[in-house]
Amino acid sequence: SFIRGMKTVTLIPGDGIGPEISAAVMKIFEAAKVPVQWEERNVTAIQGPGGKWMIPPGAKQSMNKTKIGLKGPLETPIAAGHPSMNLLLRKTFDLFANVRPCVSIEGYDTPYTDVNLVTIRENTEGEYSGIEHTIVDGVVQSIKLITEQASQRIAEYAFEYAKNNQRSSVTAVHKANIMRMSDGLFLRKCREAAEKHKDVKFTEMYLDTVCLNMVRDPTQFDVLLMPNLYGDILSDLCAGLIGGLGVTPSGNIGANGVAIFESVHGTAPDIAGKDLANPTALLLSAIMMLRHMGLHGHAQKIQTACFNTIQDKKVLTKDLGGSSKCSEFTEAICQRVQDMD
Amino acid sequence: SFIRGMKTVTLIPGDGIGPEISAAVMKIFEAAKVPVQWEERNVTAIQGPGGKWMIPPGAKQSMNKTKIGLKGPLETPIAAGHPSMNLLLRKTFDLFANVRPCVSIEGYDTPYTDVNLVTIRENTEGEYSGIEHTIVDGVVQSIKLITEQASQRIAEYAFEYAKNNQRSSVTAVHKANIMRMSDGLFLRKCREAAEKHKDVKFTEMYLDTVCLNMVRDPTQFDVLLMPNLYGDILSDLCAGLIGGLGVTPSGNIGANGVAIFESVHGTAPDIAGKDLANPTALLLSAIMMLRHMGLHGHAQKIQTACFNTIQDKKVLTKDLGGSSKCSEFTEAICQRVQDMD
Ligand SMILES: CC(C)[C@H](C(=O)O)[C@@H](O)C(=O)O
Ligand SMILES: CC(C)[C@H](C(=O)O)[C@@H](O)C(=O)O
Repeated sequence: SFIRGMKTVTLIPGDGIGPEISAAVMKIFEAAKVPVQWEERNVTAIQGPGGKWMIPPGAKQSMNKTKIGLKGPLETPIAAGHPSMNLLLRKTFDLFANVRPCVSIEGYDTPYTDVNLVTIRENTEGEYSGIEHTIVDGVVQSIKLITEQASQRIAEYAFEYAKNNQRSSVTAVHKANIMRMSDGLFLRKCREAAEKHKDVKFTEMYLDTVCLNMVRDPTQFDVLLMPNLYGDILSDLCAGLIGGLGVTPSGNIGANGVAIFESVHGTAPDIAGKDLANPTALLLSAIMMLRHMGLHGHAQKIQTACFNTIQDKKVLTKDLGGSSKCSEFTEAICQRVQDMD
Repeated sequence: SFIRGMKTVTLIPGDGIGPEISAAVMKIFEAAKVPVQWEERNVTAIQGPGGKWMIPPGAKQSMNKTKIGLKGPLETPIAAGHPSMNLLLRKTFDLFANVRPCVSIEGYDTPYTDVNLVTIRENTEGEYSGIEHTIVDGVVQSIKLITEQASQRIAEYAFEYAKNNQRSSVTAVHKANIMRMSDGLFLRKCREAAEKHKDVKFTEMYLDTVCLNMVRDPTQFDVLLMPNLYGDILSDLCAGLIGGLGVTPSGNIGANGVAIFESVHGTAPDIAGKDLANPTALLLSAIMMLRHMGLHGHAQKIQTACFNTIQDKKVLTKDLGGSSKCSEFTEAICQRVQDMD
């Protein structure tokens, strides 16, 4: 069902509250007349030949065609040996850059104001290599894998991102004082990229020092560039500064424009199906997606409507400090979008 | 020069501001009539047979005799291949537990109040194994080593610590969803220790989730137990919550009572020798040391004098928001100690 002028996006509603918050985003997109049509796909893991875990072919084909996905939360599998579908998606589509902007939301109070930074995390290797061994009984090793190629690619991406998003500095985050070879290689590639992009300020900082400085004064940071695990940690830390995963967007970017945008909070099974979920994180991820697709006007309009609704404090979901339902919050945003016309 | 009734402590003044803040602590100990005499030792790295880096024999002998050390900051070596002396000390004396209490200081304002937690970090292995290889050109691996023995030892220590310090819960911090074997082993040992110590509440949390929850509400945490790198990160994060490394003590604990207490801030070469340094972190570490030695009365007295001086806000070093010299701040604490007699 191809509609002229419409771009198709693969929608992975996900588990738990996923379908509700996805419906909310679709509704707001409709109100804002976003020229996007959705191809809904499920990504329950399936096992291929030889027991290999895979993304279901339907989802894979859709992503290969549309190149753009929006994804709700996925259940963390319980069965041993079952991979995280989040990670499998990143791997399957070689989504090498995990980008999480953390920007203070006016009207949603936290101990911090004026946070405005972006974490850029290498998304394919490092501590997430999945390579582990038992050496002898009771002695286990996990391998952190750092390659020149992946380090160079993410470093280059971070500097390009900084330029394209009017950001002035990049801080490489590392523990090269301890992991001299692996973090050393990563850091070397960051320095090389910095050399090529002299118009962007470059600094280096130990991960522990970043954590300490971050909670003391997050406004000193702009773009943060780091290996996989450090990004996992720092992006959550930074999300905490602005109010948590309920208000933090995320994008997984690959080569040639392929990308999946996702809310990184959980499936919240306790409130699933009760019209109580907060769709903000998925909506902000969808706004990131619109910018990625070049639909800046629509992105701006929805963002204004969303932030104004939060600032107004009249219609908020419970986690945001209100008592409204997901559908009411969604409706309030739709109303503002329509009022802008 | 053995004095009857006096315990001997190895003092490693360290570099930069190390000697000044060490002198401050010695002065305060004198004012408080602490029955401790100091054996001062330098730990500049030396190379033994075969080029192996070692702690100088004088420092090593002293530590082997006294079993207790107090240590200022040490310069981070610049030369490649030169190990961190901090790490070499931990390794040489098998100081397997890194203990950092983070407690809000009344009168020293930060965005957080009532922080009162302790990070307990495995101090000998994990990501700090030092084992790294180049697999092929441009591909490097670092090995994270987790053993049953070290995991069990630190887990057991954490529960014992909780009991001995009137703390009611232990949270194991991990990424066993990613590093299933290594963090999985660590976590298993934590669970086993929890089984043995049913009077202490036990929870498990992903490292990223801990970071997020920590900046949102640190008062939910009590004792945090984790592998080496996670401890490096979280201890700095928590130090940030209470005002930074200038006010955070640290202890490295080994078997049979051996321990080195240290300030974990840097050498601050820019202000070294100018009587501007803040001795609080080293003093609080020295207070931890006194408690470790069973000198609770002296510990309490000095702690009260230190905290009252900070709360009073009249005589503070620059980093604490005042304009006094290190010697003046030290004198103010000594005065209070003497007034308590
Ligand atoms: C769900 C989990 C595997 C994932 C990760 O560790 O990367 C999550 O924490 C994230 O940050 O996206
Ligand atoms: C100095 C450095 C090697 C050390 C570490 O990484 O452990 C420090 O950050 C610490 O926390 O004691």
